[in-house]
Amino acid sequence: MDALQVITYTGVFVFAVTGVLKARTKRFDIFGAAVLAFVTAYGGGTIRDLLIGIRPVNWVNDNLAIFIVLASTIVTFFFKMNTNIIKKVIFLIDAFGIGLFTIVGIQVALRSGISSGYALVMGIITATFGGLLADVLCNKVPSILKPGELYATACLIGGSLYLLFLNYDFQSDVSMLIGILVIASIRIFAIRKKLQLPRI
Amino acid sequence: MDALQVITYTGVFVFAVTGVLKARTKRFDIFGAAVLAFVTAYGGGTIRDLLIGIRPVNWVNDNLAIFIVLASTIVTFFFKMNTNIIKKVIFLIDAFGIGLFTIVGIQVALRSGISSGYALVMGIITATFGGLLADVLCNKVPSILKPGELYATACLIGGSLYLLFLNYDFQSDVSMLIGILVIASIRIFAIRKKLQLPRI
Amino acid sequence: MDALQVITYTGVFVFAVTGVLKARTKRFDIFGAAVLAFVTAYGGGTIRDLLIGIRPVNWVNDNLAIFIVLASTIVTFFFKMNTNIIKKVIFLIDAFGIGLFTIVGIQVALRSGISSGYALVMGIITATFGGLLADVLCNKVPSILKPGELYATACLIGGSLYLLFLNYDFQSDVSMLIGILVIASIRIFAIRKKLQLPRI
Repeated sequence: MDALQVITYTGVFVFAVTGVLKARTKRFDIFGAAVLAFVTAYGGGTIRDLLIGIRPVNWVNDNLAIFIVLASTIVTFFFKMNTNIIKKVIFLIDAFGIGLFTIVGIQVALRSGISSGYALVMGIITATFGGLLADVLCNKVPSILKPGELYATACLIGGSLYLLFLNYDFQSDVSMLIGILVIASIRIFAIRKKLQLPRI
Repeated sequence: MDALQVITYTGVFVFAVTGVLKARTKRFDIFGAAVLAFVTAYGGGTIRDLLIGIRPVNWVNDNLAIFIVLASTIVTFFFKMNTNIIKKVIFLIDAFGIGLFTIVGIQVALRSGISSGYALVMGIITATFGGLLADVLCNKVPSILKPGELYATACLIGGSLYLLFLNYDFQSDVSMLIGILVIASIRIFAIRKKLQLPRI
Repeated sequence: MDALQVITYTGVFVFAVTGVLKARTKRFDIFGAAVLAFVTAYGGGTIRDLLIGIRPVNWVNDNLAIFIVLASTIVTFFFKMNTNIIKKVIFLIDAFGIGLFTIVGIQVALRSGISSGYALVMGIITATFGGLLADVLCNKVPSILKPGELYATACLIGGSLYLLFLNYDFQSDVSMLIGILVIASIRIFAIRKKLQLPRI
């Protein structure tokens, strides 16, 4: 397993934990929590794969995926995960996770012959639609659609930058790193400054 | 771009506008409005393509689709779209759009080797499931499932008529036109007369 | 049509009836009831097929599927289906239906080259995600995610047993029968004893 995979699975784990925390506020049972963990962590990539036509979808037959989702459920079940310090750590890893998921989503789409514009759409879907699906399962309006945090906007800007760099034959790893950093920075900065998109 | 494409994109634009108007009632931000516009305009065709197995789904790599969805969001953001005259125009184009989407959905299904009965199902899904998905994202019971308007019934009757004409080797363009007119007429007539299906 | 098909369609019919009964509590119209019947009966298998990449999804071109869904809608519309005796019959057939759907889902996944672990996931999805989708369309938190009944757990245990038997070259039909019986028994026993999973 190389460094990128370790980082990716760390991101998946944190996404899954946020799913379990959401399940807890709705008083789901353990099965419901595992479903919400899975949907939050893998829902965005699943929708991307379905739309592009990649089959089976990416997590099928990846035993580590089940393991990580179950681990996140058990850890969150037994440990108090809402102390201030853990909340901050989760938020930070989550911000970088969103960046990583966006760029990886764009890469998967480009490899499947999708145009740049739609690769960007697929990147945003990869990073944000897991949470959207989880919110639907919790029977609430997806928070990503409402003013509050610059979430999709961060993915849009960082993803565009990444595509721009790729276009000018910038080195792929460096472009990826910059894209992720920009997305995470915008997200963190927006939360601090309480920036949000205008209402429709 | 031929006449049919111009008409189709006009229908897509109006579907997208109705999505943005729905987003406005829920006080979404601009990103949320664009998502709702996209889902309303392309959600039905997307579900049809996924069920049949057409990949990637129809709108991927169609740059005009993104453009039209963004345009509908911006136009609805800057202009007051709920004056009586505009509401009427939207309703009328929407009625014909539903007709068009039904017939096009049937054609796509038939070309993929789907039987007549299920092509009709796919036509109804194409015309109605975008709005259904948008309602789910707004966290409300999809209005298409409740008594109120003859929406799916109009698609069912007009689509059946279209398939019947095709079966008797009627000219394809004329059959299509009749199908669309029947669907739009039933829809408009039902609204005027407040017709609705019985409750279960 | 062999015995297994007769049993399967009986299960589908009962699943569809539970969908229509759900639609009734939400005061849907007849079209909405038919949609809910279809989603409840075929939603789980549809999601399984989409995730694996089987296309078109299983019910497309199966005319009996439409017929059974419509029949369940009409029967439930005209007859009082909530007398105590009918409720009990529906519950019992439903319990065996869940067992059957789980095992059939596992078989479909294995035939598509999915690993045992994920075949089990696909079996659980086949049996439970139709009801989950129907609940989403009714704008409520899916009951499968909340404490209440041992539903997914029954599928998990019975499905694992089935896979274990298969692994030891046990006769396929007998393994299937045992799997189904175990799932139905756990479900019935859990309802009687009011067993449920712990909250997260």
